[in-house]
Amino acid sequence: MMKISDLGEFSLIDRIRRKAFRSGDVLVGIGDDAAVLKVRGQSKRLLWTVDHVVEGIHFEKGEDWKRVGRKALARSLSDIAAMGGVPKHALVSLGLPRGMAVKKIDLFYEGFLKLAREFKVSLVGGDVTHSPKDFFSSVAVLGEVSRDRCILRKGARRRDALFVTGSLGGSLLGKHLRFRPRLREGAWLACEGIAAAMIDVSDGFLSDLGHILEESHVGASLDLRKIPISQAARIMAGRDGKTPLRHALEDGEDYELLFSSREKDFSWMKAFKKKFGIPVTCVGHVIHQPLKIFAHDEKNNTFEIKAKGFRHF
Amino acid sequence: MMKISDLGEFSLIDRIRRKAFRSGDVLVGIGDDAAVLKVRGQSKRLLWTVDHVVEGIHFEKGEDWKRVGRKALARSLSDIAAMGGVPKHALVSLGLPRGMAVKKIDLFYEGFLKLAREFKVSLVGGDVTHSPKDFFSSVAVLGEVSRDRCILRKGARRRDALFVTGSLGGSLLGKHLRFRPRLREGAWLACEGIAAAMIDVSDGFLSDLGHILEESHVGASLDLRKIPISQAARIMAGRDGKTPLRHALEDGEDYELLFSSREKDFSWMKAFKKKFGIPVTCVGHVIHQPLKIFAHDEKNNTFEIKAKGFRHF
Repeated sequence: MMKISDLGEFSLIDRIRRKAFRSGDVLVGIGDDAAVLKVRGQSKRLLWTVDHVVEGIHFEKGEDWKRVGRKALARSLSDIAAMGGVPKHALVSLGLPRGMAVKKIDLFYEGFLKLAREFKVSLVGGDVTHSPKDFFSSVAVLGEVSRDRCILRKGARRRDALFVTGSLGGSLLGKHLRFRPRLREGAWLACEGIAAAMIDVSDGFLSDLGHILEESHVGASLDLRKIPISQAARIMAGRDGKTPLRHALEDGEDYELLFSSREKDFSWMKAFKKKFGIPVTCVGHVIHQPLKIFAHDEKNNTFEIKAKGFRHF
Repeated sequence: MMKISDLGEFSLIDRIRRKAFRSGDVLVGIGDDAAVLKVRGQSKRLLWTVDHVVEGIHFEKGEDWKRVGRKALARSLSDIAAMGGVPKHALVSLGLPRGMAVKKIDLFYEGFLKLAREFKVSLVGGDVTHSPKDFFSSVAVLGEVSRDRCILRKGARRRDALFVTGSLGGSLLGKHLRFRPRLREGAWLACEGIAAAMIDVSDGFLSDLGHILEESHVGASLDLRKIPISQAARIMAGRDGKTPLRHALEDGEDYELLFSSREKDFSWMKAFKKKFGIPVTCVGHVIHQPLKIFAHDEKNNTFEIKAKGFRHF
């Protein structure tokens, strides 16, 4: 008997993708950060995504419920950011253990609604059900984006430069609950015509880079000396013996934007840093060989590495 | 410490509703079968809903996974039916126990996609995560409806007649996994201008009637002799000693349509039965007193009853 753990999350999604019915108004279906839907007579596209937060998986028991509620929404907003879009509406469905304290739910919504107000997202409905054991939430978000500003995973071409916002690794130490979805940054990169392909780093840098490469049928050459390693990655490395670089490349839940750009003039980087107050780093470029990732280290050795990151199964 | 079980599902939803931010394009937010959203320059409205299916709550362990997948979609489609709308797209998010057999997921999608094709619903994406214990799915559906055809819970007025499709009660014996969402029926009742307020019977007839009364600020007078009692309700009654009528009034998951109508000429009922091959029954009428339900039994006694049905907590 083949189990989910043998097949893996991404093969599972592929299986489903092959079987799904798609009508003509579905511009992008399964396989990007969000679905892209056409609305008759509109130049704006609808973006639609959903993300889970499960107790014991996405947060530990005993966590501050305000942060859990915030994260439940922030994860979906990050998907909209990766398309260059603007979030508009949210639906929340909750699975609640029977004895759960109402106070916790109030705090969950307090965190959720605070972030929703910040980005002008309307909570328009949802569903509440009993969960036999652990708390879970599932947040669907509708957003919009201009037809010519929607950035997909499949837009990367040979010789594009590869960029990542912020710094990477060690998100588990706290960032995964506090991160600010890169909505303003994503919309700006799309509007200015800078990003050609984009994804949010949720599974891990290498794994998410792998998604871009797969959808674009290209490969990547990475300069490992350029990878922006976070302070948290260094702290984690001090504890578990992995290198800080490995944490930066493989840890999940950074929710930074990873994108390719055909812009030859890099002067936009200065404007970006000034406007948003966060780093943006060129970490390599796109190459022709599909799905290959070559890396150069501090000793100028070149070697092939495998896309790797957080796997759910 | 107040627990969810003390507060109840509906009070919980009310608490959230009061706090939620709503932008101008949200025509109906929390508190109907689906949210209704305006799209700039469009006469069509977007309908948006989400529903869970949780192992051990909405189906028993060992159930045929094709039926589970079918039900996961059918529940959300039933919400769209209750608005008089047409479903267009679906997002599925799944929480999967780590050791789950891939075969089960394949069957889940087989059932899901078969029903999706039947109603021309595109599966456009989703999210897969690990669940510590039980399987759960959360299905969000986007649909559309003409501006003047959208039927809300709040549309009931004094002297409207109350109708229900099909027959009620005992759904647990199998209907809850096999039911056909009343999409064609709902759209027809909306298009022909027959339904004034509508809901799908998911929590139970009395409980869902209560939702209509609450949103419309009216009450109801019911003729209990007219309640269409299903064969399954009679079988259940034979087993547990409750009356068949009580099963029909209180059991959840019938997914029939309950609606009010201002149409004085009942000749549409014949057309309905002919067109759809299912019964539609007038079970009472709307009265002025908010939230009161008066019932008349076979002995012509009149008494007040309480809205009651399936409660998650």
